[in-house]
Parts: sequence; structure tokens; C-alpha cells
Amino acid sequence: MNEKDQDIDGGLVEQEDDAAAMEKAFDQTEVPPWRKQLTFRAAVTSFLLSLVFNVIVCKLNLSTGVIPSLNVAAGLLGFAMVKSWTVLIEKCGLLKQPFTRQENTVIQTCVVASSGIAFSSGTASYLLGMSPVIAAQADAGNMPINVKSPHIGWMIAFLFVVSFVGLFSIVPLRKVMILKYKLTYPSGTATAYLINSFHTPKGAKLAKKQVWILFKSFVGSFFWACFQWFFNAADGCGFASFPTFGLAAFKKRFYFDFSATYVGVGMICPYMVNISLLIGAIFSWGILWPIIESKRGDWYSADLSASSLHGIQGYRIFLAIALMLGDGLFHVVYMVIVTLKSFAQQKKKVTNETTDGQIGNYNDKRRTEYFLKDQIPNTVAIAGYLILAAVSIGIVPVIFTQLKWYHILVAYAFAPILAFCNAYGCGLTDWSLASNYGKLAILIFSSWVGLEHGGVLAGLASCGVMMSIVSTASDLMQDFKTGYLTLSSPRSMFFSQVLGTAIGCLLSPVVFWFFYKAYRVGEPNGPYPAPYALMYRGIALLGVEGFSSLPKNCLKLVIVFFFAAVVVNILTEVLKKFETKYRIYRFIPSPMCMAIPFYLGAYFAIDMCLGSLILFIWEKKNKKAAKEFGPAVASGLICGDSLWGIPAAILALARVNAPICMKFLSVAANKKVDAFLNGP
Amino acid sequence: MNEKDQDIDGGLVEQEDDAAAMEKAFDQTEVPPWRKQLTFRAAVTSFLLSLVFNVIVCKLNLSTGVIPSLNVAAGLLGFAMVKSWTVLIEKCGLLKQPFTRQENTVIQTCVVASSGIAFSSGTASYLLGMSPVIAAQADAGNMPINVKSPHIGWMIAFLFVVSFVGLFSIVPLRKVMILKYKLTYPSGTATAYLINSFHTPKGAKLAKKQVWILFKSFVGSFFWACFQWFFNAADGCGFASFPTFGLAAFKKRFYFDFSATYVGVGMICPYMVNISLLIGAIFSWGILWPIIESKRGDWYSADLSASSLHGIQGYRIFLAIALMLGDGLFHVVYMVIVTLKSFAQQKKKVTNETTDGQIGNYNDKRRTEYFLKDQIPNTVAIAGYLILAAVSIGIVPVIFTQLKWYHILVAYAFAPILAFCNAYGCGLTDWSLASNYGKLAILIFSSWVGLEHGGVLAGLASCGVMMSIVSTASDLMQDFKTGYLTLSSPRSMFFSQVLGTAIGCLLSPVVFWFFYKAYRVGEPNGPYPAPYALMYRGIALLGVEGFSSLPKNCLKLVIVFFFAAVVVNILTEVLKKFETKYRIYRFIPSPMCMAIPFYLGAYFAIDMCLGSLILFIWEKKNKKAAKEFGPAVASGLICGDSLWGIPAAILALARVNAPICMKFLSVAANKKVDAFLNGP
Repeated sequence: MNEKDQDIDGGLVEQEDDAAAMEKAFDQTEVPPWRKQLTFRAAVTSFLLSLVFNVIVCKLNLSTGVIPSLNVAAGLLGFAMVKSWTVLIEKCGLLKQPFTRQENTVIQTCVVASSGIAFSSGTASYLLGMSPVIAAQADAGNMPINVKSPHIGWMIAFLFVVSFVGLFSIVPLRKVMILKYKLTYPSGTATAYLINSFHTPKGAKLAKKQVWILFKSFVGSFFWACFQWFFNAADGCGFASFPTFGLAAFKKRFYFDFSATYVGVGMICPYMVNISLLIGAIFSWGILWPIIESKRGDWYSADLSASSLHGIQGYRIFLAIALMLGDGLFHVVYMVIVTLKSFAQQKKKVTNETTDGQIGNYNDKRRTEYFLKDQIPNTVAIAGYLILAAVSIGIVPVIFTQLKWYHILVAYAFAPILAFCNAYGCGLTDWSLASNYGKLAILIFSSWVGLEHGGVLAGLASCGVMMSIVSTASDLMQDFKTGYLTLSSPRSMFFSQVLGTAIGCLLSPVVFWFFYKAYRVGEPNGPYPAPYALMYRGIALLGVEGFSSLPKNCLKLVIVFFFAAVVVNILTEVLKKFETKYRIYRFIPSPMCMAIPFYLGAYFAIDMCLGSLILFIWEKKNKKAAKEFGPAVASGLICGDSLWGIPAAILALARVNAPICMKFLSVAANKKVDAFLNGP
Repeated sequence: MNEKDQDIDGGLVEQEDDAAAMEKAFDQTEVPPWRKQLTFRAAVTSFLLSLVFNVIVCKLNLSTGVIPSLNVAAGLLGFAMVKSWTVLIEKCGLLKQPFTRQENTVIQTCVVASSGIAFSSGTASYLLGMSPVIAAQADAGNMPINVKSPHIGWMIAFLFVVSFVGLFSIVPLRKVMILKYKLTYPSGTATAYLINSFHTPKGAKLAKKQVWILFKSFVGSFFWACFQWFFNAADGCGFASFPTFGLAAFKKRFYFDFSATYVGVGMICPYMVNISLLIGAIFSWGILWPIIESKRGDWYSADLSASSLHGIQGYRIFLAIALMLGDGLFHVVYMVIVTLKSFAQQKKKVTNETTDGQIGNYNDKRRTEYFLKDQIPNTVAIAGYLILAAVSIGIVPVIFTQLKWYHILVAYAFAPILAFCNAYGCGLTDWSLASNYGKLAILIFSSWVGLEHGGVLAGLASCGVMMSIVSTASDLMQDFKTGYLTLSSPRSMFFSQVLGTAIGCLLSPVVFWFFYKAYRVGEPNGPYPAPYALMYRGIALLGVEGFSSLPKNCLKLVIVFFFAAVVVNILTEVLKKFETKYRIYRFIPSPMCMAIPFYLGAYFAIDMCLGSLILFIWEKKNKKAAKEFGPAVASGLICGDSLWGIPAAILALARVNAPICMKFLSVAANKKVDAFLNGP
């Protein structure tokens, strides 16, 4: 295997790794063995926080479907709870075990896992989409075989059956992802920096300075988010709708949305990732979609709503999926080939791989050492996956009679590939695309089963199967990254994730059930309209009508884009091998990154590029300071913004509306509005 | 005279004076004698720029009445024009005299003087208020004796007669204002820094660094203003209407309006000035106006419009004027007493005064030396004032038969006091209150003359007499400050001002005449509604109805506030003399500063306090850097924002509207608007 292969990501993400010898500050701090990282108090804290987070996520899910990243908040609140507890106990002289950052990481992992289930359990998307309330709103498929009333019993059973498979599917790849590819996992990294900063022993000067800077950027970001809230009274209001580059650009989703989170993410991500995102956004929203939209009425019906998958939205989603699959599959195939080759050459692959990696500095050395200390044997992982998949194949068709055992078998055959793709992409960009893979599963399985045999329900159920695997896989890898950076044992991470998943599988349906019984969930004009439920059902309806119902030329384009992604990757690898002078391969954008803005637009890419720009200027001015404090500033930005998510959610739950709407109107609209407001 | 007397302002403004030895950089640069500062090319450049500025000011005046400060733009454009000219000539080998900063200052002074006339000539306020078009819109006084059609002939004559008096009225006080009181004159200071920075000889390291920082803050401020423009499609739109502290606070005019100009001004002004402004704003808009407004229907009629002087607006304007007059008159009386006392004690007052002043550093020494080099004898100034006043007393009653010679005589008896008040206040805060004094004159003279004898017209004409004096006086002192900081001779400043005034008196009516003939000026719905014309006529109508028509208790409050201002000043002086331990007097706010927000609201005070805060934090972090670069940053902020005024004006003249309105709506209003916009 060629050593330079690792450069594409590794070379770019180094900036945060050898930033500063954070671990030197922890030299004198003992790292407890993995069993001691999993304490009883951590479990209790996790459970309490999980409950809080599940309620918040569920309510947000049912009201708007927009959920902030909760990693950081989980780390912070976990720290605050246990720390105040231990300080109290210590004052009474009863403290037996000091509160370590590993324990903190365990709590954070557990809480994130359980609130991740609140999202992937689809109580506001695919599961609710099966209900009679939603079925009545769709234009077709409202027949008994395609409807299933939610009930707490089968929901808990279903989640327990499908949610653990994902963990085992990705475990064997952790070393490749974290040590070899050195993927960033911005949220995980930010959380790790936060946790590290909390536990830095006194006297560590640089670490203290980092903590101080992190604190300042944290507070700034928090209050900035708080300030923004006041101007966000309704949809289309506030800084998130700021047409920074004009209204025409805003309509094409080119604007800076003032999100401190993504500026921070941009500072953590490698330059090329951010630039790829921007290139993707410009290519799609600037060139491709306008061309396709000019064919409106020819390629697709002009009467369709903007969100119909038969129209322009279909091109967006399917072309994005094509690129992602092309890139993801290339990496899977490439990695398998390389792994097999190196496996054939030498037996002791694992040890070699780690000595291959350029362990350049003290931080890396310590972290790698602890990351490799407690192993999870690949045999256990593979056996676990097979057993759980078998159980699932047995039980899921009992719950959903529309699905047959071979459907589930096929799903589990392909799931690990998708899980890898998602964990890889998430590592690069912080975006988990689980719901996209879920949508793909809906299409495939609903069209396979067919409308008469309950294809709609089958599609939605298989979405659950797929999403659970893909989503927990990327969550787990994110947490492995946090664990790696906090010297937590992968084994304790894994068990914490298992515990969190179990809590989530239990709490999520219970909390949902409470809402479902108490309110008229799913009513379009009620307080909990759950917009995604109908959308998911809509995709299933598209699926049962077959790919032929896709807009014109969409399938052709999908094929072109899929192979384009593969070709770009091959080109990169070829250049890497044969063109070593200018190293042009460094400037080839990543198709995986390019695909994400296809669907979402450029706004977050612009945020992230701004983060890159800040870091770039900072590095020009003072390379050392930028290296030492860049990640701290970035983490602070992400943390502060995310933490405001909690009070904002509480305000939303208490139905406290922001007092002001900052609205952006064109001159013509403004004249009309002024006349209307000043009129009689 | 007690030396500590000078501390109240001097001690606070020192921050900018001994900042850095800017003058060291100019050590090797010869300062030309005053005659050589007034070059032919400077006169030509001034005339061309005056034309441009007069057109801009006149158009802005007639369309909205809001005019940006043009000092900086004048300095900058003067530099650009002459520099490009001299560089061209130099390349041809024909350059005889190098372009100096003194010459630059002369151009700037001349242009500012002429565009100042465009404002004080009242072509959009009192002169237009006499016209039949406006008279027809008012509810009373539309009779031949109270109406006078504008005509270019009498307008030019009137301006020439009244505009030069002001220059002579204030000249004798220049040393007191600039050297003794060390007033800041933020705009003048900023302009001086800009001009100095342009002419800094190469090799002066600190000056170069200052120029670079000034340039950066200039560019930043310019683009920030440019960015703001795009969101300001109509009234009530854009960053200037940003309800930073909520809509309720916005209604009370408490908000941050994102004006880089006033943040810069705040950085140049002493802390206590900014805090006084804020205290005044809180006292008036936070406490006093709400109390008075609660008496609505009792103290004043509830049916009045918000801008009626019979209502709340009357309290605002008259109480502000009371405070200003109290403070201003105290200073006049106090200064006269002190001057007479010291005059009696020693004959050689002037020389003493300057050695009294603590000439602490190199900059001050050089500047004071040049400021005192070319004298304008007080006898000349006083004689000039008397002669011009006599001419005016003879001619004005010929133009306006409604005014008698004794009216004008009384006006000229009091005018120097008001001119001093205004120049003093402007030196502290950068606000010229000329129009307020003009309004006061309207009230007094229109009530004196009476409706039947043409009181409305008499009031408006006397407004012109008063405003011209007061406004040119503060402009002149502002320019003296610029001259002081650029080592320009006061004599060349004075002559330049005279030239500029002459140009203005000629150009302003000509430009106005062009508009008046070409468009339907004064039509409420036309492109040039000239809102101030009707407002001024309204004040005159209030005047002829007498003070008895003022709202209830307003006269009582006016008397209370007048004496409160006097008492506060006496208290300050007493404390200064007898309480030397804690020096509490430093923390007594200035009534003059407190009065300004009475009328305008808190928004600019908040901008300025932010400037103070930035400087304060900067000084805490790095006192040396703050002292060296603070004024440069502040000047850059002011300059950049002001310079954007030119393209913005050009865009406004070309009727190019900003494309977006950033609007701030309450939740309720937003719901209505959304329903309206989405409705059929």
C-alpha cells in the first residue's frame, strides 16, 4: 500500500491534530481502565439527560422537524451535573473516584446515542407516516394494507430489533476512519475539545489559555445566537434568512445565514472540504438547476409544487444520492481491494497500519496508544452483526407483514456499505445523511413490494431498518473520534453507545406515545403538524409508482453523475500515484462533499468557507496562534450556538414566540406592505 | 485664574492629543507661509468640488433633508484631485510647488464652507417655507404679507449679506476653544488625521502604520456602509432601523443603528461626553417623556400629530433648548468674568494663556506654535463684525419689508452668544445645533412682529440671519481645529472659509433655482417634497400665536431646566475648586450634552458609548496601541462611512433604489403581513 494514499484527508486535517500538545497538560492525570470509565453515576446522569433530550427532540421533531446538534450540550450538561455532584460529595469527604474526562465522554456518548434514536426512530417521519391520520392526507394508498396505527408495543419492539445492528456494522472500521483517514468529525472534535478543556489540570498554561479562548468564543457565540433569536418570530424571519448577496442569490440559496455553528465547523474542516461544498453549490444551484428549471413543462410538469419529487426536487435528491453513492462505493471498493492486497502481503496488518500512520507528535502518540489499548475483536463485531441481523430478519416481518424475510436480508446485505458511506461523509463534513439513505430505501422497497401488497408500508418500515443502521453508525464513529481525543477507551465508548441506544429505544416511543395521546399530532394546522410524516409517505407513494414516474432524463443524469463521481475518484488516485511534482490531486474536489449542497443549497457552504477564510487569514498573520487556538475558537463557536438550542427549545415548548420578525422584502413587496400596514 | 479649570475637557481629550508624535514624522517637511497655502490650484479645485457638493446637498435637502457630514469626503477628494494633478505635472517636470497638507486643508475648508452654506441657506427650509406652494399647505397665514416667491436675485443678495457675519463673530474665541478648552471637534479631528496620513513623509514608521490602520478601518467602514445600503430600500428599513434592544425600546429611540460614523465619533469624544449623552437620553426618553405623555389629553390635546410643537414634540424641543441655553449662557458669563478678571490682573493675557496651557508634548508644541504664528487681530474681527452687521441691518429690511432695522439689530446683539454656544457644543459632540437656534429665532421674531404685520415671513427671515451666523461659526471652529492639527495657518483657514462662503452664497441659490424651475419642488407627493419647508413655516405659525399656545406646563419646565443647567455648572465649578480629593466633578454630566438626545433620542448616544467601550477595552488590553492607533481607527470609521455618502447620493440622484428592505415587524404585524403577502 502506498503511503501517500493517506494524504488526501490526513494532510489536510493535520491542522487540528498537532495543534498543541493538549495531552501534555494531562500527563500527570491517570487514565482509568475502561470498566472504571463506566460508572454508576454516569449511567444515572445519562438517563436523566436522555429523558430531557428525548422530550426536546421529540417535540421539535413534531413541530418543525429541525433539530440542532446536541453533542456539545450533552457534554456540557453531563459535566455540569456530575461535577456539581462530585464537588458536593467531595466537600462531605465522601468522594471515592474523581470525575475524569473519560467518564464525561461516556455520559456524552450515551446521551447523544439516545437522542440520536429519538431522531432515527422516525416517530415524526416514517413511523408516523404509516398512521391513518397521515394516510388520509395523501392522494393515494389510503387502504388497510398500507396503514398501521402507531402503538407503543410494536414500536418499542421494532426499535430494539433494528437499532443495535448499526453499531456492529461499523465497529471494525474505526481504526481506518480515525487513525488512517484521520477524518475530522467536527462535532465530535468540538465536543472533545470542550471536555478536555473542562478537565485540564490546573497549571497547564497553554491549555488554560485555550480554555479561556474557548470560553470567550463560547460566550460570544451563545449570546450571538440568543440575540438572533429575538428577530426570528416566524418562518422567513431573522438572520437565518438574511439575503446577504441579494434576493436573487437568496432564492438560489446563496446567502450567509450567520450561523456560528457552521463557521466553527468550517474552521475545523480541511480547506478542500469547504471549497468542494462551495463548488458543488455553485455547480448545482448556479448552473444545473437553472438549466433543468428552464425545461419546466418539458422535462417535468409545470403544475407540480416545488417540493414534489416528480419535479425539480426529484433531480436534486436523486442526483445528490447518485454522487454520494458513486463516491461512497468507490471508497468501499478501493478500500476492500487495498485491504485485501495488504492482507495478502503481510499477516500483521493492524499493527503495521498504525506504525504506517505518521504519528508525528505527542498528542497523536498518546491518543493512538489509548485508542488501540482496549480492542473490540472483529470476530465479535461480525458475529454480533450476523446474529442481530438474523433476529431482525425473523421479527420485523412479524411486525410488518408486508415485508418478507428476504427483503430484510437484502437490506442487511447492503446496509454496511451505506453505513460506511455515511460515517465517512459525516467525518468529512459533519453532515449525517441517514435520512437520505432512508429515503432511498423507501423508494427501492416500496417499488419492489408494490402498492397492492402494501408497498407503502413496506417502504416506510425498510426506511426504519436502513436509517437506524446508517444513523447509529455515524453517531458511533463521531463518538469514537471524541473518545480518541479524550483518551477514552473504544470499549467503554461502545458500551456507552449500547446503553444509550437501549435507553433511546425505550424512551423515544414512550415520549412519542405521550404526545400522540395528548395532542392531535399530524393535523396540518395543529401545534404539532409533523411535516416530515407526509413527505416520507409521499416518497413511498412515488416508489410504488416505479422509477418510470421520475421526471424526464433524471435516470440518465443519475447514471452520468454516479460514474462521474467514480471517475473523479479514480483520477485523484491516479494523479496521486503518478503526478508528484505539483500534487494537483490536492485541488480536485471531493464528489461526496459536492453532493450535499445539491439538496440543501449553498448557505452552509458559505458559512464554512468563511470559517476557512478566518483560519487562513489567521494563519497568514500568526501561524502558531492559529494552530494553537483555532480549534478552541471553532469549538467555542459550535458549542455556544448549540447550547442556545436548549433555551430556544424550552422557549419554543413554552410557546414563547420571539418578539420581532426581521423580514427581507423586495422594493416592490415593501411598497405593497407599507401601503397595507399604513392603510385603513 | 485657576489652572484646574481647564481640566474638565482638557483632561479628557488628551487621549487624542499626546497620542503619538505624528508631528515628528513631519519634522523635515517645511510648512509654507500662509499666503503660499492659498494657491490658485486650490481655489480651482475647491470651486469644482463645491459645485459637486452643492448639487448633492441641495438634492438631498429637497428630497429627505438628511445630509451626511462631508468634511472627510471633501478632504479626501481634494487630496485625490490635487495629488493626481501634481503627480501629472511632476512627471512633465513642471511642478513648481509641492502639494502640502496645509493646501489640502485649505481646499477641504473651502469646500466644507460652501456646502455648509448649501445647508444654512435654507433653500429647503426657511427660504422655501416662504413660498406660495408651502404657504398653501399650512392651515393659516396664507396671506400676501406672509408669502414671498423665491427668486434668485434677492436670495443671493440676502445670503451675501448675512453669511459672513458669523465668521467674524467667533474668530476672537479660537484660542480659547482650541488651545484652552481643547475641544475635540470629532469631524475636524478625523479630517485632520486623514489629511496628515496622506501627507506623511515616507520612512515615518509609526505614521505609516497609522495610515495603514486608518486605511483598513476606512475600507471596512466604507464597505460596511455599502453593505447596509442594499437593505435600505425605504423609510424604516435597513440597519438604521434595527431594534437592537427590542421594539419597545426602539419606539423610545433606544437602539444601535450600526452607524460606523458615530462609533468613530464616540472613540474620539471624551468618555464623559458620551456618558452625558446617554444619561440625557435615559432621563428624557426613558423617564420624562413617558411621564409627560401620560398627561396626554390633559397637558396637551390628544388629537395632535406626533410632530406638532403644541404636543410632546414641543416639550422635547423647548426643554432641549432650555438646557442648551442654560449651559451655553453659563459658559459665556463665566468666561467673560474670568477673562475680565485676568485682564485686570495682567495686560499680556494672550501670551500668558498659552504658557498656562500644559503643552505636554511635541505635537502640541508644534501645533500651538503654528496656530499662534499668523494672528487675526481682535480689532479686525470686531470691526468686521460691526461693519457687516451694519450693512446687514441696512439691507435685510429692504429685502424683507416685514423686518425692521431694530429686529436685525437685536438679532446681531445676541447672535455671538448663540454662535459661541453652538461652536462650543459642536466641539464637544460634533453636533451643530444651528437649526435649533434658527427655530428659536423664528419663534421669537414671528411672535414679536405678529401675524398681521407679516410675522411668519419675518420669523423665517430672522431664522436665516441667525442660522447663518451660528452655523458658519461652528464650521469655522471645526476648520480651525483641522488647521491646528495640520499646522495650517489660522489666517489661511479664515480666508479659505471666506472664499468658500462666497462660493456657497453664489452656487447654493443657483443650484436651488435650477431645481425650483425644473421640478415641482415642495409638492408632498413629488420627487422633491422638501419636508422641512412646511415644518419651519409651522414653527413660525406657532410663534405668531404666542408662547401662550405652548402646551401646558411647558414654560414652567423650560424655566426649571434652564436654571438646572446653570446650577449643575455652578456645582461643577464649586466642586472643582473645593473638592480636590476624589475630584467628583469629573463625574458630573454636561447639561449641553444631555440636551441633544432630548430631541433626537438615544440611538447616536448608544453608538458613541460603544465607541467609548471599544476604546476602554482596547486601553485595558494595550494602552500604548490604543493611544497610538485609536484615533486612526476612529477617523477611518468616520471617513469610510462618510465617503459612502457620495456614491449613495449619486445613486439616490439617479433614482436607483436599494433592492431589499430589511424590515422589523412585531409578531402580530408579521402575521398580518404574511397573510397579506400569501393571500390572493
